[in-house]
Amino acid sequence: VAIITLLTDFGQRDSYVAEMKGVMLSALPGATIVDITHDVPRGNIFAAQYVLGRTWRRFPTRTVHVVVVDPTVGTQRRAIAVQHDDHHFVAPDNGLLTPVLGSARVVELPIPAAAAPTFHGRDVFGPAAAQLASGASIETVGREIRNPVRTPPPVTRRDGKDVIGCVIYVDRFGTLVTNVADSGGQGEQASGPANSGWVGGTVVVAGRVAPVRRTFADVPSGELVAFLGSGGTVEIAVRDGSAAEMLGVKEGAEVRVRDY
Amino acid sequence: VAIITLLTDFGQRDSYVAEMKGVMLSALPGATIVDITHDVPRGNIFAAQYVLGRTWRRFPTRTVHVVVVDPTVGTQRRAIAVQHDDHHFVAPDNGLLTPVLGSARVVELPIPAAAAPTFHGRDVFGPAAAQLASGASIETVGREIRNPVRTPPPVTRRDGKDVIGCVIYVDRFGTLVTNVADSGGQGEQASGPANSGWVGGTVVVAGRVAPVRRTFADVPSGELVAFLGSGGTVEIAVRDGSAAEMLGVKEGAEVRVRDY
Amino acid sequence: VAIITLLTDFGQRDSYVAEMKGVMLSALPGATIVDITHDVPRGNIFAAQYVLGRTWRRFPTRTVHVVVVDPTVGTQRRAIAVQHDDHHFVAPDNGLLTPVLGSARVVELPIPAAAAPTFHGRDVFGPAAAQLASGASIETVGREIRNPVRTPPPVTRRDGKDVIGCVIYVDRFGTLVTNVADSGGQGEQASGPANSGWVGGTVVVAGRVAPVRRTFADVPSGELVAFLGSGGTVEIAVRDGSAAEMLGVKEGAEVRVRDY
Repeated sequence: VAIITLLTDFGQRDSYVAEMKGVMLSALPGATIVDITHDVPRGNIFAAQYVLGRTWRRFPTRTVHVVVVDPTVGTQRRAIAVQHDDHHFVAPDNGLLTPVLGSARVVELPIPAAAAPTFHGRDVFGPAAAQLASGASIETVGREIRNPVRTPPPVTRRDGKDVIGCVIYVDRFGTLVTNVADSGGQGEQASGPANSGWVGGTVVVAGRVAPVRRTFADVPSGELVAFLGSGGTVEIAVRDGSAAEMLGVKEGAEVRVRDY
Repeated sequence: VAIITLLTDFGQRDSYVAEMKGVMLSALPGATIVDITHDVPRGNIFAAQYVLGRTWRRFPTRTVHVVVVDPTVGTQRRAIAVQHDDHHFVAPDNGLLTPVLGSARVVELPIPAAAAPTFHGRDVFGPAAAQLASGASIETVGREIRNPVRTPPPVTRRDGKDVIGCVIYVDRFGTLVTNVADSGGQGEQASGPANSGWVGGTVVVAGRVAPVRRTFADVPSGELVAFLGSGGTVEIAVRDGSAAEMLGVKEGAEVRVRDY
Repeated sequence: VAIITLLTDFGQRDSYVAEMKGVMLSALPGATIVDITHDVPRGNIFAAQYVLGRTWRRFPTRTVHVVVVDPTVGTQRRAIAVQHDDHHFVAPDNGLLTPVLGSARVVELPIPAAAAPTFHGRDVFGPAAAQLASGASIETVGREIRNPVRTPPPVTRRDGKDVIGCVIYVDRFGTLVTNVADSGGQGEQASGPANSGWVGGTVVVAGRVAPVRRTFADVPSGELVAFLGSGGTVEIAVRDGSAAEMLGVKEGAEVRVRDY
């Protein structure tokens, strides 16, 4: 079974996603196409990286992941395809794929003369994804390049026994996802374990202190709580509420995590 | 063909639904996964019950229905799987599955030690659904229990010739769905018939009287109207408008239905 | 592979779309069902026509397209199926299918007595689509009619060297899509070519003048720009912003396109 995933900021109101699906199903009628989300905040490369980082490994090997958050579509920015750990990725060369560029093979996709300058999702990325999902090798869809654009997400630092990080994603519940991994050293790729080394510690954000518990349901309704989230990093939530609203915090806000 | 449906309050903005799909497609690459909705009002068990009640029988037998509205995830609440009328259901044991618990077989699903305390959708329910969709029998995914949590939806009562019920669901058009079945005795599971015994009667809600017609298009634009809805119960709408907005009414509001 | 597409104004919050999918998968379990969008502005026939016009040809021949924007459901309005260019279409007879009615064969679908008067999507259009996707010929699903309702979209006119058109669609980015085709004569069905004859010209809308460029990224952030859009007609956007908001413009607004 050929599986293609789609991750964009196109929304679902308009025809854009469906045009991509039509193109891909015309090339490969038996494909299974899975929407990751089309509601990445417009043009937000880091949010797309975070969502991609959580999802791609959950799919079978040989899945093709199409990621289109593309504020400079139609300019000189390149289009690329990447092979990494037996998955394929197709995206604009604007840093989106940084988390999977480690030892990956990267090719530049040709832009057909007839491609709409504002819609490479349909005219460049969709067709390339269908080719890869059909079994084409990455060398056949473009020519190799060695300098893809890299936009690494922000890193954490130590301050004595504390770890200083930041909010990298806010989910629809208003939960603040940070880039601080488990104190036992587990990072983004791990499933959240049943117990984190941080449990019993605290998180300071926006001048407020949240206790670290196993899960949000370990505090009363309406209270601030932190826990090792299902993406493998520390999250701050309000039970039955929104931490983003309560704290007035968004992506980039500093967080300090301590085990005391 | 193995069919799995998903009904959650996760929204579609984040990675959560896609992580579940990746897990299920990794276990069963040929599965057809259908989104019922991911926009159940957060934590609203009755709304999820209503949507589940309208949809599950429309799917082929052997479909597996995954329902995750789970405000107490990670606590002692159990995870269950249910077999009912040759469909399977997987959900937290918080009353969600009450409408299909009649004579059903119920098992408790084990929670793996590595499951993220905040995301059983991915780490417990998704894997169990894939197993069931692969043909596993319900006894093989958990051990039988006899006391699943039941949270019955509100019932109607008679008051002379009137039926007193309440609004149990508000749809995105602002239509008020009640729990009052057709006067001929047809209930939730029936398709709305072409003509209801209530036609010609009235519905009183929030101090306003709505005439019962066959369909909303039987009154002029902007007017209040009631009809036997497509879920088999009485609904109150405003043609080309929103009854919820016009009346300032939401779930729980009392309605009185009379055939005069 | 049998492919069915769905284009409605039902939204994705409620059970309606899933009920349709359940009905269709029960009739044809191996079908691939693709959501075009369910967020057509409520009852907006022209918006649905525009989205349909952009998408249907992208799908393989023999695809069945179900379009349900149906403000007069349950009245005397007919239900129809159309065969056009080896695609099938199923919709209420309210003008939705005007763009594909050229030389099409049109049949009237019977309305079963048990159909819910408010939900022909589930009880009429879904079942007909599943039949057609299963290989039934159009004559077997209804009896031929010759006078389907036509609601042609607004046309453009010349004023000297200018073309006067209007906004026919506003996308979720606030981009204003017009009905003005490329000056070289390419219309809605064409992919946007790499260069439009309009490039270097201007568009006047709401008293403002937008330069025509190849793509929105050809102007600085926050600036108004026009280009030949990916649907083959002129669009007006604000880079990284919303033209609809900046100009206070919506569907129907006049636009004047000139090549100078």
